[in-house]
Amino acid sequence: MTAWSLHPRLRDDTHHVVSLALADVLLMDDANYPWLILVPRVAGAVEWVGLDPADAHRLLDEITLASAVLRELVTPDKLNVAALGNVVAQLHVHVVARFEGDAAWPRPVWGAVPARAYDARGLGERLDRLRAAFARHAVAGVSSG
Amino acid sequence: MTAWSLHPRLRDDTHHVVSLALADVLLMDDANYPWLILVPRVAGAVEWVGLDPADAHRLLDEITLASAVLRELVTPDKLNVAALGNVVAQLHVHVVARFEGDAAWPRPVWGAVPARAYDARGLGERLDRLRAAFARHAVAGVSSG
Repeated sequence: MTAWSLHPRLRDDTHHVVSLALADVLLMDDANYPWLILVPRVAGAVEWVGLDPADAHRLLDEITLASAVLRELVTPDKLNVAALGNVVAQLHVHVVARFEGDAAWPRPVWGAVPARAYDARGLGERLDRLRAAFARHAVAGVSSG
Repeated sequence: MTAWSLHPRLRDDTHHVVSLALADVLLMDDANYPWLILVPRVAGAVEWVGLDPADAHRLLDEITLASAVLRELVTPDKLNVAALGNVVAQLHVHVVARFEGDAAWPRPVWGAVPARAYDARGLGERLDRLRAAFARHAVAGVSSG
C-alpha cells in the first residue's frame, strides 16, 4: 500500500488550513464562496462509504466541526456537503457555505462561475480566522457523538 | 413541532422505494442516472450536520446501505453523495451512481441535462430490483458500525 499523499490537483487548487485527527482541511482558492475540502489521510480511499465504519463516522464528525466553524465565521444561509470525485478520485468532501445571491445561487458551485483566487491579504485573514476557529472548536471536542 | 411530511417538490420528482429506520429512500424520476434520494423523517431538519449525532451517523449508515444496493445493481464507476438543499431546504441526500460517459460526466448531475422520466416498464423493473436489494441488505444488517 502506498502512503497517503494529497492529490496534486487538490494541492494546486487549495491552501492547507489544519490537520484534524482523520482529515486535512483545505481552503479552496475561490473567494466566491467560503469553501472547505476535507481529505481523509487514508491511502487509496475513493468513496466515503468505502471507509471502514469508524473512519466514515469520524469523517462525518469532522465535517460537522468544519460546518460549525463556517457557521461561526460567516453565518451562511445553507451548507452544501458533497463527495463527488468524478474528476479527482481521491476521497475528498466539499463543505461550502452558501448564501442566497452568491455567484452560483441556487445552483451547485461546481463549474458555475470561474474561480476567483484570494488576494494575499484576504487569504491570510481567512486562514487566520479559520485556524483560530478550528482551535476553539477542537478544544470543545471534535469526537463527541 | 409540525409532523414530518415529504416536501411536495421531492414527492413530485421521485418514486418511493423503501422506508428505512430513519430515512425514506426515493428514486429520482430521471433515467439518465440511477439516482436515489434519502430523506430522514425528522420534522424541520435542514442540515445533515444539524441532526443529533446519533441520527447523523444513522443517516450515513443508511447512505452506505443505499450505496451498497446501487453498487450491487448497476456497478457504477463512482458514487456521488451530496446534501445541497439550495432549492428544497428539507434535508435530503442525493446518492447517484455515476458512469464515465453518462449524460453529465464528469460534471455533477444537477442541471446538467433535462431529466428523462422512466417509462412505466422501466420504472417498475427498477423499483422491483431496488426493493429486493434493500430487503437483502437489510437482512444483512443496516445498523452495523
